[in-house]
Amino acid sequence: MQSVYIWLWISLACGGLAVLYGAVQIRSILAASAGSERMQEIASAIQEGANAYLKRQYMTIAAVGAAILILVGFLLGPVVALGFLIGALLSGAAGFIGMLVSVRANVRTTQASMESLQAGLSMAFRAGAITGMLVAGLALLSVTGYYLWLTQGASFGAAEDPRQIIDGLVALGFGASLISIFARLGGGIFTKGADVGGDMVGKVEAGIPEDDPRNAATIADNVGDNVGDCAGMAADLFETYAVTIVATMVLASIYFRDAAGAITLDAMMIYPIAIGGVCMVASILGAYFVRLGKGSTNVMGALYKGFFAAAIFSAAGLAIATHFVLGFDGVVESANGLQITAMSLFYCGLTGLAVTGLIVWITEYYTSVNYGPVKSVAKASESGHGANVIQGLAVSMEATALPALVIIGAIMLTFNLAGLFGIAIAVTTMLALAGMVVALDAFGPVTDNAGGIAEMAGLEGAVRDTTDMLDAVGNTTKAVTKGYAIGSAGLGALVLFAAYTEDLAYFASNPETYPFFAGLTVNFSLSNPYVVVGLLFGGLLPFLFGGMSMTAVGRAAQAVVEEVRRQFRENPGIMKGEVKPDYGRAVDLLTKAAIREMIIPSLLPVLSPIVLFIVVNFIAGRAEALASVGAMLLGVIVTGLYVAISMTAGGGAWDNAKKYIEDGHHGGKGSDAHKAAVTGDTVGDPYKDTAGPAVNPMIKITNIVALLMLAVLAGM
Amino acid sequence: MQSVYIWLWISLACGGLAVLYGAVQIRSILAASAGSERMQEIASAIQEGANAYLKRQYMTIAAVGAAILILVGFLLGPVVALGFLIGALLSGAAGFIGMLVSVRANVRTTQASMESLQAGLSMAFRAGAITGMLVAGLALLSVTGYYLWLTQGASFGAAEDPRQIIDGLVALGFGASLISIFARLGGGIFTKGADVGGDMVGKVEAGIPEDDPRNAATIADNVGDNVGDCAGMAADLFETYAVTIVATMVLASIYFRDAAGAITLDAMMIYPIAIGGVCMVASILGAYFVRLGKGSTNVMGALYKGFFAAAIFSAAGLAIATHFVLGFDGVVESANGLQITAMSLFYCGLTGLAVTGLIVWITEYYTSVNYGPVKSVAKASESGHGANVIQGLAVSMEATALPALVIIGAIMLTFNLAGLFGIAIAVTTMLALAGMVVALDAFGPVTDNAGGIAEMAGLEGAVRDTTDMLDAVGNTTKAVTKGYAIGSAGLGALVLFAAYTEDLAYFASNPETYPFFAGLTVNFSLSNPYVVVGLLFGGLLPFLFGGMSMTAVGRAAQAVVEEVRRQFRENPGIMKGEVKPDYGRAVDLLTKAAIREMIIPSLLPVLSPIVLFIVVNFIAGRAEALASVGAMLLGVIVTGLYVAISMTAGGGAWDNAKKYIEDGHHGGKGSDAHKAAVTGDTVGDPYKDTAGPAVNPMIKITNIVALLMLAVLAGM
Repeated sequence: MQSVYIWLWISLACGGLAVLYGAVQIRSILAASAGSERMQEIASAIQEGANAYLKRQYMTIAAVGAAILILVGFLLGPVVALGFLIGALLSGAAGFIGMLVSVRANVRTTQASMESLQAGLSMAFRAGAITGMLVAGLALLSVTGYYLWLTQGASFGAAEDPRQIIDGLVALGFGASLISIFARLGGGIFTKGADVGGDMVGKVEAGIPEDDPRNAATIADNVGDNVGDCAGMAADLFETYAVTIVATMVLASIYFRDAAGAITLDAMMIYPIAIGGVCMVASILGAYFVRLGKGSTNVMGALYKGFFAAAIFSAAGLAIATHFVLGFDGVVESANGLQITAMSLFYCGLTGLAVTGLIVWITEYYTSVNYGPVKSVAKASESGHGANVIQGLAVSMEATALPALVIIGAIMLTFNLAGLFGIAIAVTTMLALAGMVVALDAFGPVTDNAGGIAEMAGLEGAVRDTTDMLDAVGNTTKAVTKGYAIGSAGLGALVLFAAYTEDLAYFASNPETYPFFAGLTVNFSLSNPYVVVGLLFGGLLPFLFGGMSMTAVGRAAQAVVEEVRRQFRENPGIMKGEVKPDYGRAVDLLTKAAIREMIIPSLLPVLSPIVLFIVVNFIAGRAEALASVGAMLLGVIVTGLYVAISMTAGGGAWDNAKKYIEDGHHGGKGSDAHKAAVTGDTVGDPYKDTAGPAVNPMIKITNIVALLMLAVLAGM
Repeated sequence: MQSVYIWLWISLACGGLAVLYGAVQIRSILAASAGSERMQEIASAIQEGANAYLKRQYMTIAAVGAAILILVGFLLGPVVALGFLIGALLSGAAGFIGMLVSVRANVRTTQASMESLQAGLSMAFRAGAITGMLVAGLALLSVTGYYLWLTQGASFGAAEDPRQIIDGLVALGFGASLISIFARLGGGIFTKGADVGGDMVGKVEAGIPEDDPRNAATIADNVGDNVGDCAGMAADLFETYAVTIVATMVLASIYFRDAAGAITLDAMMIYPIAIGGVCMVASILGAYFVRLGKGSTNVMGALYKGFFAAAIFSAAGLAIATHFVLGFDGVVESANGLQITAMSLFYCGLTGLAVTGLIVWITEYYTSVNYGPVKSVAKASESGHGANVIQGLAVSMEATALPALVIIGAIMLTFNLAGLFGIAIAVTTMLALAGMVVALDAFGPVTDNAGGIAEMAGLEGAVRDTTDMLDAVGNTTKAVTKGYAIGSAGLGALVLFAAYTEDLAYFASNPETYPFFAGLTVNFSLSNPYVVVGLLFGGLLPFLFGGMSMTAVGRAAQAVVEEVRRQFRENPGIMKGEVKPDYGRAVDLLTKAAIREMIIPSLLPVLSPIVLFIVVNFIAGRAEALASVGAMLLGVIVTGLYVAISMTAGGGAWDNAKKYIEDGHHGGKGSDAHKAAVTGDTVGDPYKDTAGPAVNPMIKITNIVALLMLAVLAGM
């Protein structure tokens, strides 16, 4: 056993540590008081709804997943199919656990908020941190464990040849992505159907506040926070983390196939895993730095303290991993003859951390109440609903520029440092912070629920003020995480695209082993019209997907509106507060709607590469079909990046513009400007919580399916 | 003189015929009654406002244009600068004439509508047809005349070498594009600032109908129709027409450099001009088929009769041009050895006609009150403002799919028929219908104004019903034209991109003449990260540009809202109808705002290729910089196509959803659903009339500037 192999065990231990951290925190959260009987009653209604929804969702996904599992097993063998299964199961588990924790932490956060802001923050953040560490920890465990099983010595080694390692890792990513897109989309449709529908009929028509117990959609809205913003997001980030490490490892296995110097192929394969391990520890340490200053109410500042601590520890960890795995003075030569130093890879990792910081900062600028963009949306609300929406759309589009320039800069910098593999290391390091970033995000739905429970239980205003304060910060951190997820997805997809082209080149240069590729020269030049066709077709997908998911939310919301109206109409006692509305029906109705609506859009990215390949293959043959599919992968990134950033940033800006007005600006609550801002918030809901974030797994599924398709063709 | 040269004179004559048609129709329109004194008074206020705005706009553009003219003259010589000047002057003239006609036809349409629907339709359509034929005729005249001057024999020939012909034609396109983006954007900001601002303060706040004379923004709104929807659109289509023919000719000059068989290089250069000539005649003939059936009120049907007649005549004309210029059994060999038959080029032309028909049909599906999408937006309005906007956004995104698939199909088909040049011939033929398509579009603002004048002059309801009927059709035809313009821009930009890569290859293979390109191998492969950087940077531009123009409209509209509110407040007599508001101030204020706001977004596409070249050149050298700029050209098409289609189709759907409700569905005028629909319409306004259509010239400017940059570098 070579010495670098020890890092696989170290990373396993780091993943285990994260799980342990989660277990300990869960115990400490469960030990806290769950409040009055009324609060517990509300919380258990939310728990039941969330459980029921996730069970039904997972059963549906399981049916699709089982079919694909059999197909993968049939086409690529049981070892690869196992990778798919691991990815799918753990991605699902990450979501499920995230939900389990947050439906228990919500009511305890309400209770803690009665005590102090610090106590509320601490409870909500710990709940977020559990999800965050479990997501990152499970992802690290799954990739590391599966890789160990595939490669380690004769006693472990299950892979018959190096290709199976690559295919297996890709299949693991595919499993994770598949669950993730269903969870993101299904959860997103559920949560925003409830939120939009509930707001439209409650706030706008009946004139009752958000989370008012008389609104039949209230419980569904709170259920939605848990299954969409929490479980969906957790599955998504699990996928982003796993796919990024997998893509980097795949690229390493191709690039450094013949590496024979001081740095071996094994070291290059293990390096991303090691980065994941050290940064995992950094995130756990960082979590302990989240704390309000004495007498301060700067919640965002408290969270940033934790984030920056995690980033600094990660930089240190990166140095350690580089030193022990590669050796700082090491040099490795890639298959195409490029000399890469360990030092430059270290710089690429630092670039990844810097990109994370910049994207966090830019997203905060566009979505926080303290800066121009949100204020401009609030100001426009004075001129009416239309002006609010126009300004919000303008902000959403403009918000794409700086993140894109950061990503473009990072590509140029890391490519000059260490070629395409440099980009991969930057994304890996970026993603290694996922534990901390997810913690910041999962914090949001918990506080949102806590506020809802306070309102429904009729607690006094001070509690609500505390939870509102936490919730406003949650809006920004949610937007920040999405910016981070999509930014890393954009870079990660480039790595996947590189894997696609390099794989193709490898197959084509070994025609004896891979007869399908015999005599193929694939021309990826932009002057090949089939490349243009692929770019245009890929570019279409995020638009079509976005449109379909917006329609789905609209339909679900309208069903909710009709249901709530019906209940108000048929039972006048509800409005008077004498009779409790039938919360369960709204939850049921949404469950069915969300699951029905998620299937077709989710299959779009799975089927698109296959259909494009078949069509172009029929018209122009294999080489052009493969070129077209490759270009499609970039097309989907190019538009997907902008569509996703604009949707998530715009949605965040609308939401906080409403909050800014509710804080007493431009006429405050109840003014015409407020009504206009509520409209903007409603529009922003499916933008930021359904369509926008689901673009992220969509981009990667397209890429991963293309890679698997290559693997299948290679076996022909 | 070779026999094909006769076709230059024939096309000149066809262009002249179009101008003659315009002159005759202008006389006949001016001879019609301009209605009562009150109507004439209103019309002359609109005329004055439109004149004042366009004068100020052209003065500003002239300053920018003069600077660029000097730069072009200095860098590329006076012959090329003349091309720029011709393009700029005639593009400006097309816009100006369009405005002059429509501000005179508007009041006459009101007067004719008092007589009958047929009379109103005839007046409005003739006004549109004048603009359409002049736009296409002047574009054809300018390209043909300039080309004649550049090439014809010793007595004419002004070009010193073949490069100057190419550079001159490209410069002509640049001149046209530059004016066009300023006119589209400036006019768009003016018209939508007035429309949005006027609606928000009038319809929503004060509860008075559209075009009510008490609203100080009313005249400005009507001025806007003329300077934005009419003059801006005319300049845009002039540009699209000229640039497409130019791009096809440039590609011909590169591809068939050494053509020596039956079909000569000259014939290939003249073929696109000949197509323009015959289709010009087809459009004029088609215009005579626009006529309501006896007792019918199907205005759309009447317009389609004209459109399909023009298309059928064009197909016949295409056959004639192909026979005489190329000979149907002719074969030509391109520089890269591809054998192309005249027959297959004919098929490519027919494909262009088919694409036009399909895009018209698809756009009508998404924007007409008769189909599902508009009805779904109207239905969603019942659930409130937010639901309307969400459904509108969903429709806007989904509406991109079919046009994109049509374009993708056309690329594959024409490429298989005749290589990249086949795509060019398809777009040329598509654009050759411009005279007819612009006629359909310019019809819209005239009827819109006619309705406004009827309302302001207090004419009875029947007239308003007639103009409303015409106006609803105008909304769809406006959307149709925009879909057509952006579809052809997408294909046209591919042709420009091909010209870029081929130019580059030519320069690089002649390093003695073009020392700058000595030893360069530009790698356009997608696996080159600088290509990815270019794609991402190009992809950003439509988003940033769209965001900036939406912001500009929002700002202008808010200024209008404040001005109208101020007038209501300071002079209570206005609301009572006793005192006339100060219309001039609103016009003035908007004029300044629009001109101020148009400059920076317009310069974005001009400067972007240059900045990207300089930055990447600094980091990675010439070859990568040229690759990056090339990729940027495709990136801007990939996202631009989707952004523009979604904006124009979505805007049309919102507008007609409102009209559908006003026709008595979902509660009709004044209902809550109607209020929500007004919000959607307001949001759609800058989408469809400012940001969306301006993306079209933006895409092409980026491409043309890149081509000119190559020309400048070639001279170094």
